Amino acid sequence: MTRRAERDKTGRFLAEGANAVGAALDRGAAEPGFVHELFVTERAAQAHPELVTAAREQGVRVSPVTERAAAGLSETVTPQGIVAVCALLDRPLATALPPSPRLVAVLVGVSDPGNAGTVIRVADAAGADAVLLAGDSVDPHNGKCVRASAGSLFHLPIARVRETGAALTACRESGLRLLGAHGYATTGLDTLDLARPAAWIFGNEAHGLPPEVLAAVDEGVRIPLYGKAESLNLATAAAVCLYGSALALHRPRGG
Amino acid sequence: MTRRAERDKTGRFLAEGANAVGAALDRGAAEPGFVHELFVTERAAQAHPELVTAAREQGVRVSPVTERAAAGLSETVTPQGIVAVCALLDRPLATALPPSPRLVAVLVGVSDPGNAGTVIRVADAAGADAVLLAGDSVDPHNGKCVRASAGSLFHLPIARVRETGAALTACRESGLRLLGAHGYATTGLDTLDLARPAAWIFGNEAHGLPPEVLAAVDEGVRIPLYGKAESLNLATAAAVCLYGSALALHRPRGG
Repeated sequence: MTRRAERDKTGRFLAEGANAVGAALDRGAAEPGFVHELFVTERAAQAHPELVTAAREQGVRVSPVTERAAAGLSETVTPQGIVAVCALLDRPLATALPPSPRLVAVLVGVSDPGNAGTVIRVADAAGADAVLLAGDSVDPHNGKCVRASAGSLFHLPIARVRETGAALTACRESGLRLLGAHGYATTGLDTLDLARPAAWIFGNEAHGLPPEVLAAVDEGVRIPLYGKAESLNLATAAAVCLYGSALALHRPRGG
Repeated sequence: MTRRAERDKTGRFLAEGANAVGAALDRGAAEPGFVHELFVTERAAQAHPELVTAAREQGVRVSPVTERAAAGLSETVTPQGIVAVCALLDRPLATALPPSPRLVAVLVGVSDPGNAGTVIRVADAAGADAVLLAGDSVDPHNGKCVRASAGSLFHLPIARVRETGAALTACRESGLRLLGAHGYATTGLDTLDLARPAAWIFGNEAHGLPPEVLAAVDEGVRIPLYGKAESLNLATAAAVCLYGSALALHRPRGG
């Protein structure tokens, strides 16, 4: 289940480490059956008794494993000895967006799982209603993405949308303004009215947004570069854009 | 020179790859003698003739090396075959801050070189006047920091300040308001007047800012978390804070 093909086939993925397992069990409390099984070493069970208790209370099977078996399930150099087997958490596009969303992040062809996880964490912090992984984006259940999201993967609706156009259409029909982050756009983040519900659309780390996406958005938006840096990396750019919107959306009107 | 002790002894460090070498040579053009030597494979010389020419024009010795020798100089898995030997670029605190700075980033005890480099890149993009690495922070000449900074390490003044108190005093005496980023601060970023010159102070990835630094700042500032995320990582938090200030500082007054 550490490989994509295996995850897709079994409909399961692994959440590893106390933080991720805790976030998975929080979700399991609201969504019975979300966590299928908890593998835990004796050492980890002693370190995190509250997780073992929470799992049992949800009716999750708790399976003791040896350190060696836990290491076999782990993708990290220093396994924590606690791994939850979870249901895949992405949902269909139609159910990912709430009725009147205010902030959504769309990743188009983002290839690095650490970047995707970091953006999901920032989107969660900024109060986004959903994250859509469009086009040829990385699988959000990838272990590196799960870790980089620091639990946020379990906090907000995630959809995988093969057809990027369908993701954009759904956002537009939900009343969101489509803002495409783009280094060479003429509109700067500093001149934009950010206090309007928006879908922020971010492209691939190396290639940015494809031309057809830039043609489809309501506005291409450039983050002003005040120094000599040529660009920002994806995660920091997403932080600036999503928080730009979040702070403006939460500001009292007329304040 | 890939080790700190060796860098400190020789007063040299290595900038690896075409982007870093280009940024180093740009700096060398303004600061003669900054680049000491350029090691380049035949393959890299063909791929980047403009860098070889720029080095020769600055009087930098250009030394052809074999692929094997280039790999020996490299810290990366796929060496690009081009490495510049540069003078250490940090400067004394007294000369790092310009007369009337508007935006400065201070890292206190930041331990991950990738994080430090990413924050230096964001600080550069936000137009910061300087970055101060205070206390027990990582060496900015570390190869991972150089790479993560994407050239920005060469763009703005960097100082290493062992005594954190001295860094804070220098910022205050330059007329900067000291803002300490802190997850549990009572003042939120959303309620702060950001259009005033500021030094943003960021702490260690795991432990945040030490109590004596929090006691010394003018304001502890919390980034509002609108969703369920418990925190942001250092680089994205720095992006939100530094750009919060940068956008406000560049906004036309009364606009």
